[in-house]
Amino acid sequence: MFAAHSSEFVYRTKGKGTYEITGRVSEVVRASNVQTGLVNVFVRHTSASLVLFENADPTARQDLERFFAQLVPEDAKYFSHTLEGPDDMPSHIRMALTRTSESIPVAFGQLQLGTWQGLFLYEHRDQGSDRSIVVTILGN
Amino acid sequence: MFAAHSSEFVYRTKGKGTYEITGRVSEVVRASNVQTGLVNVFVRHTSASLVLFENADPTARQDLERFFAQLVPEDAKYFSHTLEGPDDMPSHIRMALTRTSESIPVAFGQLQLGTWQGLFLYEHRDQGSDRSIVVTILGN
Amino acid sequence: MFAAHSSEFVYRTKGKGTYEITGRVSEVVRASNVQTGLVNVFVRHTSASLVLFENADPTARQDLERFFAQLVPEDAKYFSHTLEGPDDMPSHIRMALTRTSESIPVAFGQLQLGTWQGLFLYEHRDQGSDRSIVVTILGN
Repeated sequence: MFAAHSSEFVYRTKGKGTYEITGRVSEVVRASNVQTGLVNVFVRHTSASLVLFENADPTARQDLERFFAQLVPEDAKYFSHTLEGPDDMPSHIRMALTRTSESIPVAFGQLQLGTWQGLFLYEHRDQGSDRSIVVTILGN
Repeated sequence: MFAAHSSEFVYRTKGKGTYEITGRVSEVVRASNVQTGLVNVFVRHTSASLVLFENADPTARQDLERFFAQLVPEDAKYFSHTLEGPDDMPSHIRMALTRTSESIPVAFGQLQLGTWQGLFLYEHRDQGSDRSIVVTILGN
Repeated sequence: MFAAHSSEFVYRTKGKGTYEITGRVSEVVRASNVQTGLVNVFVRHTSASLVLFENADPTARQDLERFFAQLVPEDAKYFSHTLEGPDDMPSHIRMALTRTSESIPVAFGQLQLGTWQGLFLYEHRDQGSDRSIVVTILGN
């Protein structure tokens, strides 16, 4: 029967960077027993985001981090939202430029990711923290 | 019973900037009586977009606007799509860098947004206009 | 009856640039006979992406391409993920800055796109290749 399965988990990050959560989401999909449908993964924060990214070679993620450090500098003179430190405003912008949620197709009971695709939680603050992630599976 | 609820509303913007529509979308979700599922909010335009963003401190959104003004300058020499003025092409790029639709989980009859998350319509043209927004709720 | 319809097609690109797939996705939606719901289009790659973009004037897409060529230069000194050539790492970043999947509402049996919106497969590698695209329709 077609249904919606909603659950939530917390991932503790250790500062700026990407953390793979593909396995964690796969488990939730398997437990739901959904064969065909869609899973939506949603981060409940404004200074962390999600990105589907190359998961074979770690240098790709290091380069992504360097790119964002240059694209959204911490010392931009025009920033006024700086109460929580120089990484505060850049964290919101980096979030806006990536994704708050990703939707991934499910078929034959499995995430239909490509060979090199992994789902990453992207932490944009210097200090890590507990990040709440909602997983919603729609299917049957 | 699991169902899809589709509706549309128009929001009149007043020029470049972010306009919170969280309340409007919440009302549509409440009216649908869906307890568990997903809501997709979709902007039917190529010079406006959506972004889930920090909604407590307005300076965060001002800084976002300044960042985009620098990232996508109106006077780029290589722009050829300029028929509607200098804000024409940048509006399309700013849209591509943010999101045409956002999907937000619904549980216990409510949007599962984090404490600081608000949904914003992001207008990229100098002159405001009527923006059509489609809300699709999937759930039961 | 509410159901999920999953299918996949392959699109052969011919190098960097945008390729409209609106028609192809519309056909899949029509064949599903779904009247109300949501369609998710998902690219199973990390060096190609999707973007909903202005589809009337081709110069808009040329300017988008020029913008990304400047934003993500191929010769960034800090790139270390360069095994497959200078377009390798930029392709992943360009993908991260656009979208791996787009969700589009379906109502009255049709994609609810705006007048100027087209769905484009965005190839980020110099050499074209076969790109797998999963289409998931949820609705009834």
